[in-house]
Amino acid sequence: MSKIIDVSQSPYAKLKTIPISSVKVKGFMGKYLETLVSVTLPTQYDLLESTGRLDNFRIASGKLKGLYKTYFPFDDTDVYKWSEAVSFALASKELPELEEILDTVIEEIKDAQDEDGYLGTYLSGERKKERWTNLAWNHELYNAGHLIQAAIAYKRVTGKTALIKAARRFADHIRSVFGPGKKEGAPGHPEIEMALVELYRETKDKKYLDLSKYFIYARGRGFISVPRNPGPEYFIDHKPFVELEEITGHAVRALYLCCGVTDLYLETGDEKIWQALNRLWENFVRKKMYITGGAGSRHEWESFGEEYELSNRRSYAESCASIANFMWNFRMLLATGDGKYANIMEQVLYNGLLSGISFDGKHYFYFNPLEDSGKTRRQKWFDCACCPPNLARFIASFPGYIYTVSNEGIQVHLYEKSSTELLFKGTSVKIEQETDYPWNGQIFFTIKTSIEEPFTIYLRVPGWSNDFSARIDGREISAEPQNGYVMLNRSWEGRHTIEFSLPMKPELMEAHPLVRDDFGKTVVKKGPIIYCAEQVDNPDFHVWTLAVDSENMKEEKRKSSTEKWCFSREQEGQ
Amino acid sequence: MSKIIDVSQSPYAKLKTIPISSVKVKGFMGKYLETLVSVTLPTQYDLLESTGRLDNFRIASGKLKGLYKTYFPFDDTDVYKWSEAVSFALASKELPELEEILDTVIEEIKDAQDEDGYLGTYLSGERKKERWTNLAWNHELYNAGHLIQAAIAYKRVTGKTALIKAARRFADHIRSVFGPGKKEGAPGHPEIEMALVELYRETKDKKYLDLSKYFIYARGRGFISVPRNPGPEYFIDHKPFVELEEITGHAVRALYLCCGVTDLYLETGDEKIWQALNRLWENFVRKKMYITGGAGSRHEWESFGEEYELSNRRSYAESCASIANFMWNFRMLLATGDGKYANIMEQVLYNGLLSGISFDGKHYFYFNPLEDSGKTRRQKWFDCACCPPNLARFIASFPGYIYTVSNEGIQVHLYEKSSTELLFKGTSVKIEQETDYPWNGQIFFTIKTSIEEPFTIYLRVPGWSNDFSARIDGREISAEPQNGYVMLNRSWEGRHTIEFSLPMKPELMEAHPLVRDDFGKTVVKKGPIIYCAEQVDNPDFHVWTLAVDSENMKEEKRKSSTEKWCFSREQEGQ
Repeated sequence: MSKIIDVSQSPYAKLKTIPISSVKVKGFMGKYLETLVSVTLPTQYDLLESTGRLDNFRIASGKLKGLYKTYFPFDDTDVYKWSEAVSFALASKELPELEEILDTVIEEIKDAQDEDGYLGTYLSGERKKERWTNLAWNHELYNAGHLIQAAIAYKRVTGKTALIKAARRFADHIRSVFGPGKKEGAPGHPEIEMALVELYRETKDKKYLDLSKYFIYARGRGFISVPRNPGPEYFIDHKPFVELEEITGHAVRALYLCCGVTDLYLETGDEKIWQALNRLWENFVRKKMYITGGAGSRHEWESFGEEYELSNRRSYAESCASIANFMWNFRMLLATGDGKYANIMEQVLYNGLLSGISFDGKHYFYFNPLEDSGKTRRQKWFDCACCPPNLARFIASFPGYIYTVSNEGIQVHLYEKSSTELLFKGTSVKIEQETDYPWNGQIFFTIKTSIEEPFTIYLRVPGWSNDFSARIDGREISAEPQNGYVMLNRSWEGRHTIEFSLPMKPELMEAHPLVRDDFGKTVVKKGPIIYCAEQVDNPDFHVWTLAVDSENMKEEKRKSSTEKWCFSREQEGQ
Repeated sequence: MSKIIDVSQSPYAKLKTIPISSVKVKGFMGKYLETLVSVTLPTQYDLLESTGRLDNFRIASGKLKGLYKTYFPFDDTDVYKWSEAVSFALASKELPELEEILDTVIEEIKDAQDEDGYLGTYLSGERKKERWTNLAWNHELYNAGHLIQAAIAYKRVTGKTALIKAARRFADHIRSVFGPGKKEGAPGHPEIEMALVELYRETKDKKYLDLSKYFIYARGRGFISVPRNPGPEYFIDHKPFVELEEITGHAVRALYLCCGVTDLYLETGDEKIWQALNRLWENFVRKKMYITGGAGSRHEWESFGEEYELSNRRSYAESCASIANFMWNFRMLLATGDGKYANIMEQVLYNGLLSGISFDGKHYFYFNPLEDSGKTRRQKWFDCACCPPNLARFIASFPGYIYTVSNEGIQVHLYEKSSTELLFKGTSVKIEQETDYPWNGQIFFTIKTSIEEPFTIYLRVPGWSNDFSARIDGREISAEPQNGYVMLNRSWEGRHTIEFSLPMKPELMEAHPLVRDDFGKTVVKKGPIIYCAEQVDNPDFHVWTLAVDSENMKEEKRKSSTEKWCFSREQEGQ
C-alpha cells in the first residue's frame, strides 16, 4: 500500500492515488531510478554519516559524547528525507542492503526521542531549554513534518511500525504544546501541515487533521515572532492564508504551505482556502513561475520576486521549490482532475526539477540558473543540504505520480515507458506504456483486464500540444479533450492497444511582455522540454551572443539545432 | 582652506585641489546646495536627534542613562557625516544657526571619548569589553574614519580644533592597538584608510600615513576573521589588494578601499598598488558599472555581481556606492590628470548619484533601480541610514570638485553656472561660468586675472561628446583635446571670455552584448544625462512595453520625446 499520499477516503479528492509498487518505470525516469538506488542513495548515506548528521542522533540519544555536529537546526531532515526516499525506492525494487541500512537508521532516529515524545537533535543536551522558543528559525515543526512523512513511507512500504510510533508520539507531544489555550504558534517553515494530514489519513485519528488546520489558520496572526529582517512576508506570516492574493516570500515555504493547505482542502472541502489556493495558483503560474517550472526569482532570501520579475542570470529556482511546485500541483490535480495541474507537473519535472541532479546521480544544483557564466556547477553536497535528499525522495516516489483512478476510470497524467498493474474497482488492470517520451510523443499502450463494464481511460493532452491522434486497436478515434484529457470510454476486457500520438516540433516561445528580462529573447522547446544552448556545442561564438534567426529558419534546421542541444544536455550531464 | 582633500604636498598628485569656498555654484547643483542648507541639513539633524543617534553619544558620555538606542554599530557615522556636510556647507555660505548646532554636536561627540582615546558609542558601557573583538561587523575602524574626516572638515572650514584633537587621540589609540607585533587586523568596512591619509596631510605626521598603509596591506591575510557567510570576498579580504584582478564584494567597501588606496598612492607612488588600482578600474568601468555610474548589481550582500551581470530590475546601485565611485575617480584624476576619470564623475553625478535624493531634499533612495514596478519610492530615512548624510556631505563638498590647478594651469572638470576665485601660483584668477549645463552644452567663461605669463586653461571634452567648438574673445580656436581636455594656453591677463560649446543631441546607446539583461534594449541619453521613461508621462501604455522606433525616428521627434522625459524627471522629483 505504498502510496505517496493516500486520498482513498478523502471526500474532496476526485482522483485517487495508486501505490508506487504498482508501476515499474523503465524509460527516461527509469534511468534516474536506477541511478538513484545504485548511486544516489548509497552516496547520500555516506554523506549523512561523514557530515555528522547521523552522529547528531547518536549524540542526542547519549550513545555518543559531544555537541551537535552540523550547522543548521534542520539537518535531521536530511536523514528523514533520505529514509523516505529509501522507503519509496523499496516499493519499486527489493534492495536488501539498503533496507538493512535503513532499519538501522530508523533505530538511531527512534533512540533519540525524549521521554516526552520530543524528537529533534539540534535542541537536545544543553540546548534543550530553547525548545519552542524560536519558531521562526529553529525548524522544530518542519523537522517533525519530515519525520512524520518518513515514518509513514517506511510503514507503508515495509510494514514496520517502529518509526510511525515515534512520529505519532512526537505529534501528540506537539499537540500537547500548541493550540488555543496552550501555546499559540505556527511553523517558521511550513511542512508539518501536509505531514499531519497524512498522519490523519494513515491513522484515521482526526486530531492530527485538526492540528494541521490549527497551524494553517494560526499563520498571519503574529504568533511566529518573525525577525524584522526578512520580515513576516518571508515566513508567509503577513496575512492569514485565506486572505492571500499574491504568492510571496520564501519560495519553498510558500509552496510547502500550499501543499499542506491543499491536503487540508482534500479532507474538509473548506471553500475559503480553496479560493485562496486558486488565487495563489493563478498568481504563481501566470506571473511568478519560470518557463522551467522554477519558483523563486531572488537569491535574496530564496524568495519570490514581484510579479513578472523573472531574472534569468540570477534566477534562484531552488530544486526544493521545483519539487514543492510538483507536489502542490499533484494535490490540486487530485482535487479537480484538471489537466492544467498535470501540465505544470510535467513542465517542472523535465526542466526545473531534474536539472537539480546530474546524470551521475551524485551532483546537485541547489539553485538552477536559467542563464549562467559557467561558474555555477553541480556540487556533491551542501552545508544546507535540503535539495539532494529531496531530489532522492522525489525520484523514488515518481512511479506513484503517473496514474490515478476515479469512479469513472483511470487517468494517465505522465508518459513514461513502464509496466503497471493497478486495481480499478477491485479488479486488476495491466497497462504497458511503450514510449521514448519525453524525446518523442508516440506512446503505445497495451491494456489487459477482465473487467467487462465500460470505463474510461483518460490520456492527458499536454498544454504544449497543438494536435494529437489516438487509435484503439488500430482504429482512429476522434475525440475532443475535456479538462485536458482525451476520454476513451469502452469495455477494455481482454487485451487492447492504444496508439497515442503527440507530435513534437521544435518551437520558439516568447515570454509575457512585462517580463523585461526576457525581452528580445526566445525559448527553444520541443514537446515538454526547454532546451539550453551551451558553450561546449558552440565553440566559435560566445554562447550568449548566439541569435535565433526565427524568420528564415527552416524547420529542419531548427530541428537539428535543438537536437544538438538536447544531445549536449545528455552529454554534459554533470 | 576648505579643501575636501588636500593634496598640495602630495608628490604623486599631478593636479591640486582648491578650497570649496573658492567656488559659488549657482546652477543645477546650486539648487541642490540651496535645498541642502534650507531643508536637508536641518531635517537630518532632527532625525539624528529623534532616532537616538545623538542620544547614543550622551549615553556613552554618561549624560544620559540607558542603552545604545539604535540598531547598527555604525550609527555614529551618520552624525559624523552630517557634521562633515555642515562643515563643507559653511565653506559656501554663512549659516550661523547651523554652525551653532554643529558646535554643540561636536561637543557631544567629544564628550563621549574615553580616557584612552577610544570613541564609539556602540561598544560603550556594558559592551566595552567587546572592543576590537569583531573587526568584521563592529565597524569601529569605519566609525573612526568618518570621525577623522568630519574633524578635518570642521577644522578646515571653521578653524576650530576641538574635534580634530579628539580624532587624533582616537587615531593614536588605534595605532597603539594595531600593527605588526601588536594586534594584526584590518577594517571590516574600509573607510579609515583615506581618513588616515588625510589626517597625515592635515597634521604632517607620517605615522598616520603608515597606519593607513598598514591597514591596506593587512587585508587579504585572514586578520579580519570574516564569517563564513558572506565570506572573505564580501570584505575584500580574500586576497591582498595588490593581487586583486576583479572588483568584487560589497560595493561600498570595495570602492572606499580603492579611494583609500589611491590616497596612499598619491603620497607614496607605490607602483604595485597603482597597477592594482588600474586593473580594478578597468574591470569596474568596463564590466561592472551601470550606465548610470551605479555600482553593485546584487541586492544580495549589496555586492558586485559577475562581469557583465547588470540586472536592471534588481540593480542595487546603492547611493553610497555612487558617491564612492565619484570619490575614487576624483582621486584617480588627481593622480593622472586624465579626463577619463572626470567623465565617470560626471556620468555618476547626474545619473546614479543625485537620483539618491529628491528635489525636495528630504527623501532618499538607498538603492537606485534602473527599472522599477513603481513600488520603490524615496524614503525619509532608513534604519541603516548611511546614504542620506553621505548625499548631504557630497552635495556640500561639490564646489570643490569643479576645478583643480597644476603647474601648467587650471583644469575645468565639471560645468556648472558658478563664480570662482582661485589662486594660481599665488595670484587670483576669477572665473565665471554661465551655462545651463547639464541641460545644454553652451558654457560661457569670463576669466579675470592680473597674471601676465601664459598659463593653460583645460576644458574637459566629455566622453559623450562627438564635437566641440571653442572661441576665445569671440575668435574660433582650433584645438585637439589631449587626455580629454582642450588646452587653451595664452596670457589671460585682464578680462577674457571663452565660449565653449558641446552640442548635445538625443542619442540611443546599446550595452555590451554580454550584458544579457540589456539585450534588445536601448538607453536614451542627451549630453551627460540618461533619461527614464515613466508611467506618468505615458498613460496610454504600460511603460514597460514602450518601444523606440530607432530606424524611423526623426531627430526632432527624438528630441521632443527625451525632453518630455526630462521634464517629467524634474516634475516627478520625489
